[in-house]
Amino acid sequence: MTAVEDKLDATFTALADPTRRAIVARLAKGDATVNELAVPFDMTLPGISKHLKMLERCGLISRSRRAQFRPCHLEREVLDEAVEWIEESRRIWNERFDRLDAHLRNIQRPTSPRKRGTTHE
Amino acid sequence: MTAVEDKLDATFTALADPTRRAIVARLAKGDATVNELAVPFDMTLPGISKHLKMLERCGLISRSRRAQFRPCHLEREVLDEAVEWIEESRRIWNERFDRLDAHLRNIQRPTSPRKRGTTHE
Repeated sequence: MTAVEDKLDATFTALADPTRRAIVARLAKGDATVNELAVPFDMTLPGISKHLKMLERCGLISRSRRAQFRPCHLEREVLDEAVEWIEESRRIWNERFDRLDAHLRNIQRPTSPRKRGTTHE
Repeated sequence: MTAVEDKLDATFTALADPTRRAIVARLAKGDATVNELAVPFDMTLPGISKHLKMLERCGLISRSRRAQFRPCHLEREVLDEAVEWIEESRRIWNERFDRLDAHLRNIQRPTSPRKRGTTHE
C-alpha cells in the first residue's frame, strides 16, 4: 500500500466520528487550545485528547510547542487531499454522463436526408 | 446523534479503506457485477461481497434486483454529501483568511488625512 493510500485511510477514519468532525469545523474558525475545545463539547480533557491524537496522527491538525498552551491548528492541505480524491471519482462520473448525453443528442439528430428505408423503428 | 451525522460516519468509514475506494472509483466509470469487480482486485467473491455490503449500508452503492447479475451502481449523492461537509469547513477557513487579508490591507494603507487629499486615485 502506498503512503498516499495510508494517509487517505487515516484521514477518512479521522473524519468518521461526529466529535472529530466538530473539532475540525471549530478549528476552521481559528486555532484553539485543548481546554478551549473541551468546553463546548462537554468532554473531559483525556476524552478530547484522545480525539486530538487521532486527528494529529493523520496530519489533519498540528499543535505548536508554545509553552503549556499548545494550540491546535487545522492543516487545510490534508482536507484538500481528501476532497481531491472524492472529486476525482465525481469527475470520472460526470465525464461518463457528458459522453452519454452527447451520444443521445447525436442519435436523436436526423441524420438521413431521405427517410432511412421503410421500416418503422 | 442525528441521521445526517450517522450517515457521514458510515460514509467516511466506508471511504477509509483502499479496496473500497478503488471500488468506488471503478463504479464511477460504470455499473459492474460482483464478478466483474472481483477480477481486477484479485479478491475472492466473499471478500469483495464484504466490502460491497459496507458500501451498500452507507448508501454509497446500490444493487439492482435484476436476475442473478445484480450490478452495483454508485450513488453520487452520497459522495456529494461527504464533499459538502468538508467544503463547509474549507469555506469557513477561507472566509477567515479573506478577513485577515482585508484587515492587513487596511492597516497597510496610508491613513494620514493630509496625504489622502494629494494622492492620485
